[in-house]
Amino acid sequence: MSKGITSRAQDYSQWYNDLVIKGGLADYSAVRGCMVIKPYGYALWENMQAVLDKMFKDTGHENAYFPLFVPKSLFEAEETNAEGFAKECAVVTHYRLKADPDNKGKLIVDPEAKLEEELVVRPTSEAVIWNTYKDWIQSYRDLPLLINQWANVVRWEMRTRLFLRTTEFLWQEGHTAHATSEEAVEETRRMLDVYAEFVEDYMALPVIKGIKSPAERFAGAEDTYCIEALMQDGKALQAGTSHFLGQNFAKAFDVKFLTKENKLDYVWATSWGVSTRLIGALVMAHSDDEGLMLPPKIAPVQVVIVPIYKGDDQKVELGAKATELIQKLKTLGIRVKYDDNDNNRPGWKFAEYELKGVPVRVTLGARDLQNGQVEIARRDTKTKESISIENIVTHIQQLLTDIQQNMYNKAKSYRQEHTTVVDSWDDFEKTLNGKGGFVAAHWDGTAETETIIKDKTKATIRCIPLNNKKEEGKCILTGKPSWQRVLFAHAY
Amino acid sequence: MSKGITSRAQDYSQWYNDLVIKGGLADYSAVRGCMVIKPYGYALWENMQAVLDKMFKDTGHENAYFPLFVPKSLFEAEETNAEGFAKECAVVTHYRLKADPDNKGKLIVDPEAKLEEELVVRPTSEAVIWNTYKDWIQSYRDLPLLINQWANVVRWEMRTRLFLRTTEFLWQEGHTAHATSEEAVEETRRMLDVYAEFVEDYMALPVIKGIKSPAERFAGAEDTYCIEALMQDGKALQAGTSHFLGQNFAKAFDVKFLTKENKLDYVWATSWGVSTRLIGALVMAHSDDEGLMLPPKIAPVQVVIVPIYKGDDQKVELGAKATELIQKLKTLGIRVKYDDNDNNRPGWKFAEYELKGVPVRVTLGARDLQNGQVEIARRDTKTKESISIENIVTHIQQLLTDIQQNMYNKAKSYRQEHTTVVDSWDDFEKTLNGKGGFVAAHWDGTAETETIIKDKTKATIRCIPLNNKKEEGKCILTGKPSWQRVLFAHAY
Repeated sequence: MSKGITSRAQDYSQWYNDLVIKGGLADYSAVRGCMVIKPYGYALWENMQAVLDKMFKDTGHENAYFPLFVPKSLFEAEETNAEGFAKECAVVTHYRLKADPDNKGKLIVDPEAKLEEELVVRPTSEAVIWNTYKDWIQSYRDLPLLINQWANVVRWEMRTRLFLRTTEFLWQEGHTAHATSEEAVEETRRMLDVYAEFVEDYMALPVIKGIKSPAERFAGAEDTYCIEALMQDGKALQAGTSHFLGQNFAKAFDVKFLTKENKLDYVWATSWGVSTRLIGALVMAHSDDEGLMLPPKIAPVQVVIVPIYKGDDQKVELGAKATELIQKLKTLGIRVKYDDNDNNRPGWKFAEYELKGVPVRVTLGARDLQNGQVEIARRDTKTKESISIENIVTHIQQLLTDIQQNMYNKAKSYRQEHTTVVDSWDDFEKTLNGKGGFVAAHWDGTAETETIIKDKTKATIRCIPLNNKKEEGKCILTGKPSWQRVLFAHAY
Repeated sequence: MSKGITSRAQDYSQWYNDLVIKGGLADYSAVRGCMVIKPYGYALWENMQAVLDKMFKDTGHENAYFPLFVPKSLFEAEETNAEGFAKECAVVTHYRLKADPDNKGKLIVDPEAKLEEELVVRPTSEAVIWNTYKDWIQSYRDLPLLINQWANVVRWEMRTRLFLRTTEFLWQEGHTAHATSEEAVEETRRMLDVYAEFVEDYMALPVIKGIKSPAERFAGAEDTYCIEALMQDGKALQAGTSHFLGQNFAKAFDVKFLTKENKLDYVWATSWGVSTRLIGALVMAHSDDEGLMLPPKIAPVQVVIVPIYKGDDQKVELGAKATELIQKLKTLGIRVKYDDNDNNRPGWKFAEYELKGVPVRVTLGARDLQNGQVEIARRDTKTKESISIENIVTHIQQLLTDIQQNMYNKAKSYRQEHTTVVDSWDDFEKTLNGKGGFVAAHWDGTAETETIIKDKTKATIRCIPLNNKKEEGKCILTGKPSWQRVLFAHAY
């Protein structure tokens, strides 16, 4: 049965789009660069949100909501940040439409409803938030201020791809304020750890924690920490970032506090975010030519039960058996779906749930049942086995754990095989253009060299890994001295 | 102790603003008409969302996400809808800023980055959603399509008020598609019932379910159902709406389906929404001159424990006792906060939690504890009592139920006292300008009469109650025959 999915070997990029669209995660919309997140994709996002939200709250953060619009004068206050995002800003200039006098039934922008000051649709919320924090922070007693926001943001990207780079996307952005630089750095690192834990434990995707080179920093940050993951085509993907903002925004918005020593000082800041881009990472890292492969911990449907029957009597009989099983699974918190829709044949359903990446499929056959057996198929290994109906609940529970672990292991092996230590320019280029993946090489630490390497190879420094081994060597390009390797890769 | 809250008698409108701002729910922002929802207000919204979201899912709906922007050509496709919202639309016309050549460090809108087609920031999403449904619906097998979206929307209001009417607000919007008119009407009514159940059972606020007069319908709807609540100043507030959209959007976006009889027909639609406006209703309906009064079922903090101690030894001792109690309460799912912050005195804390509307306050005094007693104060009746520490958990559990019920009863009594049956124009005007509330009066059913009454009294028809008693009478204004009373009121 053909699902009309392009294979990875044939066209990796088209394979990705096919999975996202045919797997029911998202679709293009009538708005340039904006996507529709379909129910199945949104359910996945909700599961991811729920886990992250709990992790944020467990680390002392509260949610709040700040305006979608940023007046231009606020937006430009922190100049580095403004400059970094200026080219991607959707701008509201008018607040009214009116009937088009020349075209019955059509509307035009009312020229008389021009805003005195234009509003930027937030590409990120530092400006509007720090302008608010000015009123919230007076004394060290108001610190730390630990706030997170779930929101949509807009960045006018020239080339867009579903989930990975869309004009509008959903994300969370944490914005915290601290009394000291040390506390702010500690927070920046803590949230990087939260992200790493989430992506590894829930998305089954190993990541490398590191720090960005100055050229790759968030606009307005003193330091940008990141987690980097590897996709199946050997390209890296930045899965989350956590920024130490120093006192840049406090100075731009004049946010001072009275210290314990009764002095006035500027507040220290962090911000950190992950977005619906993570769904793109999930698809690219785990799926195969048959479809999606979703990690059990966040899969909208963990177990699908497909009955095979002839006639209504058998359908009723199997339905009763299924109800019993579903009840038991639900009690254990397992997300289960029963598909006895008569419009589709079992073979079609098998292919469909394979495409949708449901981790476990249970086939309930009338004949098997008489023998007290059911067939269980796992999505990750594509293996099937017959299991006694009596042990099925424990078996499924264990299977979900195994699949989660197996997916992680597989991705980790892939990354290990695709991380190459390289010491010559020839090998550097050969590796990047051949097997791809992370290339660990020496770099002289200058932005100039970084730019030349990028121009020559299209590879960027993904990060300088945390706890990097100190190792003397020579820059891969210039031969100048270096004391550590950094990770280069082609990247999304 | 003065909290600086204006009393209701002095200035109801200022009282409301004081509560919202000083109670920590929301604040004004630098963006005209947009508010910042503060952590305490957002926690309240999250609790409301969680309940509603579950109710939507229990009635078969799935969440999805559609773009923030609506291209003008799509927006204007359903003409009545477009006309209704045209005057309130924020419009994106450009997609880039650039450095201002005349002002170092400042930005200007790049005139070269003008959009070919302007984008409307969604005031509601029927247009963008029905343009998508066109691709999702082919056959009766694809129906019903039951989708909900949690999102921000923007309506450029001239006069704004925190929560009640803001330029940007948060809401949910359900958009469903059905094979028959009957099914769509049934859905419209079902969701009205869901809203009524939520507002009555969780927000402790009685509502009247009704249908809007044609003049008050949602732009593009065939029928608008609503729930109407009464505030403490005698003004009505529309708390939620559910629209039967007929085939209007299906026709505008050409959404046809193959029926079971193998014919092509347009799809039938509904949409329904509630927003952060509900928080405004909550504040206005229940609070008093001391502060907010939050219904236990959705209060972010249900129980606050304030220790009273001298010296560190007592603090440690009370802390241990409190930890024990908190553990027990949390096991029962009760949201509890322990405030042993040394920066504030107990009296300050009492006033603060009264202001924030925490339903139950437990005072843990060192001396009382020796006698095995604690003091419990309830926010709604302001009564205090001493309770044996042994019974405290059961007592608190019962108290939360009682407070929820008592708040509902009080609001219901108020509404009963402020619903007046009126048969003469004199009484009609006198009631509206005197005690206010709902006025049940006969109306001849014409839009003309409705307009004249509105012009004369500023009162609108809030709704024609469902299951209205048939009763012959004469229109309050024209004396023409009428067969039922409708509810008039001044409204938010």
